[in-house]
Amino acid sequence: MIKVVIIGAGNVAKHLYQSFSAEKQIDVIQVYNRNADHLDFVKDPEKKASDLNNINKADLYIIAIKDEAVEEFAAKLNIDQGIVAHTSGSQPMEALSRFENFGVFYPLQTFSKSKPVNFKEIPICLEANSQENLDFLKEVASLVSDKNCEVNSEQRRALHVSAVFVNNFSNHLFTLADDYCRENDLPFEILRPLIKETVSKIETLDPFSAQTGPALRNDQKTISAHLELLDEDKKKIYTILTESIQKLHGKEL
Amino acid sequence: MIKVVIIGAGNVAKHLYQSFSAEKQIDVIQVYNRNADHLDFVKDPEKKASDLNNINKADLYIIAIKDEAVEEFAAKLNIDQGIVAHTSGSQPMEALSRFENFGVFYPLQTFSKSKPVNFKEIPICLEANSQENLDFLKEVASLVSDKNCEVNSEQRRALHVSAVFVNNFSNHLFTLADDYCRENDLPFEILRPLIKETVSKIETLDPFSAQTGPALRNDQKTISAHLELLDEDKKKIYTILTESIQKLHGKEL
Repeated sequence: MIKVVIIGAGNVAKHLYQSFSAEKQIDVIQVYNRNADHLDFVKDPEKKASDLNNINKADLYIIAIKDEAVEEFAAKLNIDQGIVAHTSGSQPMEALSRFENFGVFYPLQTFSKSKPVNFKEIPICLEANSQENLDFLKEVASLVSDKNCEVNSEQRRALHVSAVFVNNFSNHLFTLADDYCRENDLPFEILRPLIKETVSKIETLDPFSAQTGPALRNDQKTISAHLELLDEDKKKIYTILTESIQKLHGKEL
Repeated sequence: MIKVVIIGAGNVAKHLYQSFSAEKQIDVIQVYNRNADHLDFVKDPEKKASDLNNINKADLYIIAIKDEAVEEFAAKLNIDQGIVAHTSGSQPMEALSRFENFGVFYPLQTFSKSKPVNFKEIPICLEANSQENLDFLKEVASLVSDKNCEVNSEQRRALHVSAVFVNNFSNHLFTLADDYCRENDLPFEILRPLIKETVSKIETLDPFSAQTGPALRNDQKTISAHLELLDEDKKKIYTILTESIQKLHGKEL
């Protein structure tokens, strides 16, 4: 049995807890959070910890807290065995260099409070300070996911930026469209099949080849007509993305 | 049987042809294109037409050609019965006002050459110059799709703009991420589960509530670190979308 302590009570911590708990070869012996009230998701009260002096001995300590708090937290964690890994896309592995054995266990996914995810399909990006530690993290990752890969800190940062583009920014475009539909008495529902197909398309085509629309066609009449309809914020976004499409596809104005 | 003539040989025309041909109550009697070479997808040679003087009598003429060519084409089409409808998201219905009976049959979807789509799930946005004509278009639409809705020209323009945001612009963000991954020796594959989940999430949440990321958290450290990594084009897009997220979610800098 691999003994694991999870640190944190956010979405990543919760989903890790659920996925690890379902795995026979892993024993989540403790979940730590400064505020124990947030540990509702941990069923066994004996597994809840809110005092850093009461952290049990484990093989793996997973720090699944806010990116910007990782280093500060690490300075307060006193353990003398096991591997310490964080789950942050943006923090370097070296944020944990005060430990003897350390690494990164970064699940590349967006986690919601209420929506369950299939952990098996989530790529887990791994990095460690030694081959032995990397092998250990690979072993753990392969128990919960079918997709684990070695990714260095620089690549992980690149993935984190990419994730902002494909997840945060796309979702914001959906929000703007939702807004705009409401303004025009249209239900957002009507756009769902199109959104679904947008993603389904790039399962077989690379996104460059899947590009369509007035920007790609350099259809100035449609572009001007669209710009006239939009408020300042949406107009700015429309203009800059149109320019970027034309630049990338070699159709500069 | 409802007799239909389809005009055009692009993706929309092809998919309409396939979907209409599969429907027993519809008889696609002809497909017109100026250049008959592009009508390969029409099996029966007698149904191919490339001479505007040889258009047969039909109940419905669907003009599925490039948005900007609709009005010019309409001026050349001489028919004296049936309804004429175009499939354009950006053209007003009035582009067809020289006919007695006219309307719009706009399938809100992105069509690819090679990828089949399930027409049943595509919302078809309808508009017509009389209730009778609207009822007729509804009848036709309901034969091929489970989702048809009445949408006036102004709303259709709004939908077209929204489609650019959710389809063209999202796809471009995927392209930029793909690019950036390649630069960092990462396969785009690794982002697919995240993209899938981004869309799956908004099936149960509205996109405003589904928003996450450094912009929403106003995590300036991560935002600055990301900006330092990006080239000019991506930096501009990152900045403007971050600002827009913060504005919309009430976290102005």
